[in-house]
Amino acid sequence: MATQESTREALESSVGTLNKGLGAMNSPLQPEQVRQLHWNLLREDLSLPTAVLYQDRLTHNLRWMQEFIAAYGIRLAPHGKTTMAPRLFEMQLESGAWGITVATAHQALVAYTHGVRRVLMANELIGKENIAIAARMLRDPGFEFYCLVDSAAQIEQLGSHFSSQGQHLHVLIELGVMGGRTGVRNDEQLNQVLDALAKWRNAIALDGVEMYEGVLDEEAAIRVFLQRAVSVARRLRDEKRFDRSPFLLSGAGSAWYDVVAEEFSSAGFGDAAEIVLRPGCYLTHDVGSYRKAQQRILEHNSVAQRMHSGLIPALHVWAYVQSIPENEKAIVGMGRRDAAFDSGLPVPALHYRPGDTAPKTAVAHWETTKLMDQHAFLKIAAGDDIKVGDMIGFDICHPCLTFDKWRTLPIVDSNFNVVEVIQTYF
Amino acid sequence: MATQESTREALESSVGTLNKGLGAMNSPLQPEQVRQLHWNLLREDLSLPTAVLYQDRLTHNLRWMQEFIAAYGIRLAPHGKTTMAPRLFEMQLESGAWGITVATAHQALVAYTHGVRRVLMANELIGKENIAIAARMLRDPGFEFYCLVDSAAQIEQLGSHFSSQGQHLHVLIELGVMGGRTGVRNDEQLNQVLDALAKWRNAIALDGVEMYEGVLDEEAAIRVFLQRAVSVARRLRDEKRFDRSPFLLSGAGSAWYDVVAEEFSSAGFGDAAEIVLRPGCYLTHDVGSYRKAQQRILEHNSVAQRMHSGLIPALHVWAYVQSIPENEKAIVGMGRRDAAFDSGLPVPALHYRPGDTAPKTAVAHWETTKLMDQHAFLKIAAGDDIKVGDMIGFDICHPCLTFDKWRTLPIVDSNFNVVEVIQTYF
Repeated sequence: MATQESTREALESSVGTLNKGLGAMNSPLQPEQVRQLHWNLLREDLSLPTAVLYQDRLTHNLRWMQEFIAAYGIRLAPHGKTTMAPRLFEMQLESGAWGITVATAHQALVAYTHGVRRVLMANELIGKENIAIAARMLRDPGFEFYCLVDSAAQIEQLGSHFSSQGQHLHVLIELGVMGGRTGVRNDEQLNQVLDALAKWRNAIALDGVEMYEGVLDEEAAIRVFLQRAVSVARRLRDEKRFDRSPFLLSGAGSAWYDVVAEEFSSAGFGDAAEIVLRPGCYLTHDVGSYRKAQQRILEHNSVAQRMHSGLIPALHVWAYVQSIPENEKAIVGMGRRDAAFDSGLPVPALHYRPGDTAPKTAVAHWETTKLMDQHAFLKIAAGDDIKVGDMIGFDICHPCLTFDKWRTLPIVDSNFNVVEVIQTYF
Repeated sequence: MATQESTREALESSVGTLNKGLGAMNSPLQPEQVRQLHWNLLREDLSLPTAVLYQDRLTHNLRWMQEFIAAYGIRLAPHGKTTMAPRLFEMQLESGAWGITVATAHQALVAYTHGVRRVLMANELIGKENIAIAARMLRDPGFEFYCLVDSAAQIEQLGSHFSSQGQHLHVLIELGVMGGRTGVRNDEQLNQVLDALAKWRNAIALDGVEMYEGVLDEEAAIRVFLQRAVSVARRLRDEKRFDRSPFLLSGAGSAWYDVVAEEFSSAGFGDAAEIVLRPGCYLTHDVGSYRKAQQRILEHNSVAQRMHSGLIPALHVWAYVQSIPENEKAIVGMGRRDAAFDSGLPVPALHYRPGDTAPKTAVAHWETTKLMDQHAFLKIAAGDDIKVGDMIGFDICHPCLTFDKWRTLPIVDSNFNVVEVIQTYF
């Protein structure tokens, strides 16, 4: 039985033979065994399209963000929803992350099952089976779990469940803004939440305050929102509402983490607060909205300026030119099934002709003009040196909606050898 | 060894414990065993969000399309890329489908591995490992595989590979239109393809003509394109270019299959041609562009009119109302990670309050106004009977980009009992 059990577990965690973007496999393998197959992207060992991560760039980005956050004396809980790749969670934790952030009970379960010991679910926990998932994880005394509340109705659900189980749930109050997403808008809603929490103190511990500034897109308004979060945290501290010491104060998506770091670290809470930031897209970065955000940060933030570098795009989707049916149009075998398209289309970055020594930088005027489910339209110029069978490596916009299109992503070294395959759990 | 092997295969095909949208599982189960867990959607046994298929509607749509196609005396090879669910392929084949259509070598491998014996890859086969995947499958004499060619450069790649292996690849010439996607645009390109095929006759068999009319959006232009395909097929037949008898003539996505059926079936080829249509979205249908297409078909097509019914949306994404932070806004726990958003946002269809006997039709003025990665913004009116913890079942637009967000989809009966779980292989 013990052997069957371990066989089962090994197989549940193994890389199956039917994932897109990999090379030939005779049987499922453990992720670390895949290296022994000696796949190389440029040797065309992989079935394209494939999404690959560049090892050196990942490492650079891991270190960059950890160093940035550490300079403010605060904590990093990278948003795991971006990648949903437990192996990447592991790298983030090994680099010094305080915990992993997730968005749903299911994502929390994936992190927990893969050994993450501290999860911040930056979302309201709701619904019978989702609550049951949390309750089952919480039976493990070594697991630390936080989630959000923003209404009395939700707190009633949580309170009645966890109270009946004799369990304690740890929550943060989420603050929101009018026109925004979740979160209490004003003092009236806040007081309703506090009253509901007071009723269920036997089952629900109030451990801090959370907000997501990314629902706003102007720095001035974001700073006002952050200052409101500081002010609410101060009030709750003064009223001794927090059951955790230090209490938690958490904000930050992947675009405004510098501003959040500045505002929260200068709030003067000292050791009374543990400040937790939650960017997720920094790991692979992109050439869309996050590159724009990074440019703003490098222009304005002194900590980032002292670091003499920035984040680097670390993910490419590679695909073949499958047809050049018109002088100014190439069709590439990659589509909405393979890359995000909601905040910019993939951008040609590298061009490789099988047999060549190395990829070249893609011609500057090449442009993705349309993405269908399985195809990309590439605008080229008549006479460009591009052929059917050429490989194009595309930078992407919006990592979250690119990762979720892949169950496995090879990590390649600087020679495009596959050194590892990571798995996602969307 | 035999036992280990069968254990491995059983586990590779089993439903894992970490898929979103399911209920509690202690260990992986075979898809058919999941029924024994007696999950019920309305009893909140599933972790929402979840995407469910309605058994009776699936059955209706399966039969409807098969009957429609049969009325024209032609064949159905449903596009498998829509669902990538081998269990649904099986249902389609059992209902009378001629084969399964796919878009990539990887998708062909998934179909082949799950027992599909006839696959039409309605796309150009390109790249070393993709060709190798096809070559490995073709070693099975019981497997029938067709793919597309549209350039001499691509045919050179295919010819040199399959010739060196002593294998035969069966291809269709793809026709395309200026401004469209892949496919030969004119006689000059067609003749280049024919010349290249003539060179590799020992390795590549020309079995037919293929086109995809969905790159156009006006009926008149589509009919012209279809008539061109008929004319090319007639020329190639007259020139005795086809290696297959009957030759294959294939077209049709999910929006214009009626027009394709009309044009191709009236071309007068008789037994000389096997006409193969490839709609994929009919199985679940939607409330977006395919509903519009269906309305057009029911208005104009006499076969559809005689059938006294149409396709019915058979997939809902269910999610919880997690917050009602403003009088006219509810936030629902479902986002771009859970439903397509590229041709219309999900539409509230059913509203269920846990404990009630049955879901009600969702209030007509409720509207999804925005989708973030994990959240939907629902416009409601002040005073509407909606509460945190309520469940909303959403109709969706674009099945392809909804299916690919789920690894497992429960099939429910009319009482919302989960009778089966189907797995996808994207």
